Amino acid sequence: VHKDFILSESIESNSFFIRDLALSKLLLLNDSNYPWLLLVPRKANQTEIFDLSIDDQHQLIEEIVLVSSKLKVFTNATKINVASLGNKTSQLHIHVIARTNTDIAWPSAVWDYAVATKYSPETAKKFILEFSQLLDFSTKT
Amino acid sequence: VHKDFILSESIESNSFFIRDLALSKLLLLNDSNYPWLLLVPRKANQTEIFDLSIDDQHQLIEEIVLVSSKLKVFTNATKINVASLGNKTSQLHIHVIARTNTDIAWPSAVWDYAVATKYSPETAKKFILEFSQLLDFSTKT
Repeated sequence: VHKDFILSESIESNSFFIRDLALSKLLLLNDSNYPWLLLVPRKANQTEIFDLSIDDQHQLIEEIVLVSSKLKVFTNATKINVASLGNKTSQLHIHVIARTNTDIAWPSAVWDYAVATKYSPETAKKFILEFSQLLDFSTKT
Repeated sequence: VHKDFILSESIESNSFFIRDLALSKLLLLNDSNYPWLLLVPRKANQTEIFDLSIDDQHQLIEEIVLVSSKLKVFTNATKINVASLGNKTSQLHIHVIARTNTDIAWPSAVWDYAVATKYSPETAKKFILEFSQLLDFSTKT
């Protein structure tokens, strides 16, 4: 049991940092098959949404809404998939995935579907920069 | 576009009614492979969590927390899986699934994994009755 939040090694090694929101670390999963974000609440030893305080639960759904609505605009997605699973990595993390009806797994769920296609450093950097600009724009208005 | 909420036919035909919570219809999915609940906000024409008002977003996560924490106790689950996907059925619905490390799909995600195993009427009735009693107990305290 850790007193302080430490990002799970399995998440850190498979993602790129975008920014810290009020509650959660926002990450880009390193799988270019789908625009796939992760929200990881920066609280130690949380595995279920109900482990969070009620204030943090409200903040979490607001961050899910912020990130998923911006991701839909950013990608012109058909549908946003949101999920807290954690069967393999217990640290609480929320998947926010932009699905289009032409993606490799559509309409199936993405987990265990296709082997991850890694981003090139340039493509990941471009995604993070452009998505960050969209977040800045929305949080300023 | 419907003005009033009508439960999607594909959801209705594959589930049992448990009760109406303040925002959502609580249903038991007819697949005994896993204790699998659905929360369907009773709002017309909603497909994404961000379609809901901020008050309804807060209410939704409170209902997710209520139902998932009680389901964990009820089933002694290893992990609760929570998801809003909707690639096949667009009406906003939240999956709340009790996973155990001995279930048929563990640790994979459940969607498109195994063919649904229907409940017998008696087993479904027993689940609904006992889970309802647990909900009553918690909402009275």
